[in-house]
Amino acid sequence: MRLTFDIQATDGHARAGRVTLPRGSFETPIFMPVGTLATVKAMTPQELEALGAQVILSNAYHLYLRPGAEVVERCGGLQRFMGWPGLILTDSGGYQVFSLRSLMKIDDEGVSFRSHLDGSLHTLTPERVMEVQARLGSDIAMVFDQCPPSGAPPEEIAAATARTTRWAERCAAQPRPGHQVRFGIVQGGLDVDRRLAHIEALSGLPFEGLALGGLSVGESPEEMHRVLARVAHRMPADRPRYLMGVGRAEDLVAAIGAGIDMFDCVMPTRNARNGQLFTRQGRIVISHARYREDPAPPDPGCGCSTCQRYSRAYLQHLYRSREILYSRLATLHNLHYTLDLVRRAREAVIAGNYEEFVAEFLAGRDQRPPQSSC
Amino acid sequence: MRLTFDIQATDGHARAGRVTLPRGSFETPIFMPVGTLATVKAMTPQELEALGAQVILSNAYHLYLRPGAEVVERCGGLQRFMGWPGLILTDSGGYQVFSLRSLMKIDDEGVSFRSHLDGSLHTLTPERVMEVQARLGSDIAMVFDQCPPSGAPPEEIAAATARTTRWAERCAAQPRPGHQVRFGIVQGGLDVDRRLAHIEALSGLPFEGLALGGLSVGESPEEMHRVLARVAHRMPADRPRYLMGVGRAEDLVAAIGAGIDMFDCVMPTRNARNGQLFTRQGRIVISHARYREDPAPPDPGCGCSTCQRYSRAYLQHLYRSREILYSRLATLHNLHYTLDLVRRAREAVIAGNYEEFVAEFLAGRDQRPPQSSC
Repeated sequence: MRLTFDIQATDGHARAGRVTLPRGSFETPIFMPVGTLATVKAMTPQELEALGAQVILSNAYHLYLRPGAEVVERCGGLQRFMGWPGLILTDSGGYQVFSLRSLMKIDDEGVSFRSHLDGSLHTLTPERVMEVQARLGSDIAMVFDQCPPSGAPPEEIAAATARTTRWAERCAAQPRPGHQVRFGIVQGGLDVDRRLAHIEALSGLPFEGLALGGLSVGESPEEMHRVLARVAHRMPADRPRYLMGVGRAEDLVAAIGAGIDMFDCVMPTRNARNGQLFTRQGRIVISHARYREDPAPPDPGCGCSTCQRYSRAYLQHLYRSREILYSRLATLHNLHYTLDLVRRAREAVIAGNYEEFVAEFLAGRDQRPPQSSC
Repeated sequence: MRLTFDIQATDGHARAGRVTLPRGSFETPIFMPVGTLATVKAMTPQELEALGAQVILSNAYHLYLRPGAEVVERCGGLQRFMGWPGLILTDSGGYQVFSLRSLMKIDDEGVSFRSHLDGSLHTLTPERVMEVQARLGSDIAMVFDQCPPSGAPPEEIAAATARTTRWAERCAAQPRPGHQVRFGIVQGGLDVDRRLAHIEALSGLPFEGLALGGLSVGESPEEMHRVLARVAHRMPADRPRYLMGVGRAEDLVAAIGAGIDMFDCVMPTRNARNGQLFTRQGRIVISHARYREDPAPPDPGCGCSTCQRYSRAYLQHLYRSREILYSRLATLHNLHYTLDLVRRAREAVIAGNYEEFVAEFLAGRDQRPPQSSC
């Protein structure tokens, strides 16, 4: 068994567990910061470690294009290349191939696309994608899937789901490093029955975990929550359940309640760079005139190093001046917020009061963020 | 006496000293990292402190435009606004007004210019510039000077120098915070006699230190070194001598030998962001193909945290991907290099072997940086 999953506590559908892999272990529920290009934007590995990040996500598609999987391999693998002492999950790139509008041709064999960097032509097959991830040397590799766009017609979603199953079988047959595990990806759009059928189809394949793909791709939060509530707890209970691309606080809380164990999302880091700071009361937009001389930290209740040292007034100045330090301080804060939220959710599951945790979380969202002036 | 300057050792014209101000002290020779907009780009105050920075430079002109001196004042002054525990020198903005090509009108009263941010019209006089620096609350304020362009005709340089003297008198007559000292700025282009005459004129005014402005503005290093060699040691020996805008390693070593005590420059930070990393052997251009799979740190002899943890291969990947982490790691390295160089120069002055230090420095420049591959 390359992966062992100990469920330490459950509360309703919510679970608290520990996943152990050959190179390390992590606690669930877990939020995995996104480091698309072998770096979580603006952060050092040491800062991520201090924030309590245990696994980060990187992207096989992006790293295949630059610097190239062979370069990373010759530099000792992704972990060593970027100096990250924790675990790494690599996304396969399926989502990127379809979302970056660079797609040229898709058939059962694989996908042809043009690089978004230089326009060069590339072909990725399930076999090649697993080879790339093997070279990168990640701890968790994702299968190559076809992710149809949000609102695609039912027959297109059905075809993509069937193809994702055939590709998953080919991915599962590929060689891999001794320390690497593989997760399958469940597609099926917003159709609960199709999702359940795909879970059934993938459960029989030798994947150490299963993920839900194709959610948070344009549908409303209510639609996603509806699907999650009916689908998540039907995924195999003895393996980690991973909801891809979801990181909004409200969605994390709902999805953990529905039985999801793992998350990744660019939102905490991207929103930080775009001027949105997370607080228990909701988001603040740092460029707002009301913060111009505000001596308070982003979130007065927060214990992160940004909130310990810097005012909204200073952060607004850095943001307006497009200073790099702004991206650092804001990213650190938003990651702290998100990692801390999931950590507290885990504690609530263990304490058996997840319902109260959710109620308290939702009640806090109704309060306005405190304001003051210098 | 708001400023005391203890000269601890001399070696030829070179000096090692300690400057004590109401809010702290610093050792000379000193390199002051530039934080134009109340942030040394990409660095936190804690990192600067760990690098051994004692004074940073910020810019009255830029802060006057954004966020405004009144905002900084109401937020407790520059030191508190940006969370920097050390000392701060503010440049007056004279150089910026003339170099940013935004100048509308200049006469004895002052300068009218358009903001480079929004085109709005502003007038700065010597009085107003000192008021801005008083509000910012810096430890060392610079007088408002007229800095003529490199290669300006002699009569233009003569007129600018005379006006700088009249403005210096008006600056010296302004009120200031109890903790603030003021430095005059010597102009005069590359004409040694004019420089000496201007030193004479400014020496009689109540400035705690004198600076050389209008150098490193386009002339060759040889021309600058020639002027420095004849001018620096003729500046008042009992006050700190500050060479503005100079930070190239060869220039620092020559200027310290000529008797200069203080330096600032954007070069270490700006060149870092532009892909140039300093080593004892010279600069390396990180985007060069030869570093693509190079596992060596930027400078194998360097003790900074970047060189302890990251390879040239990884830095090149981050640089090519325009990742924020690149700017952080490269800036930290270049600042470490520059601060360390000046620290070693100081030690050489104290040890009485500055000449050997210079010879060793120059000999090192002839070696090629070591190369290797993954």
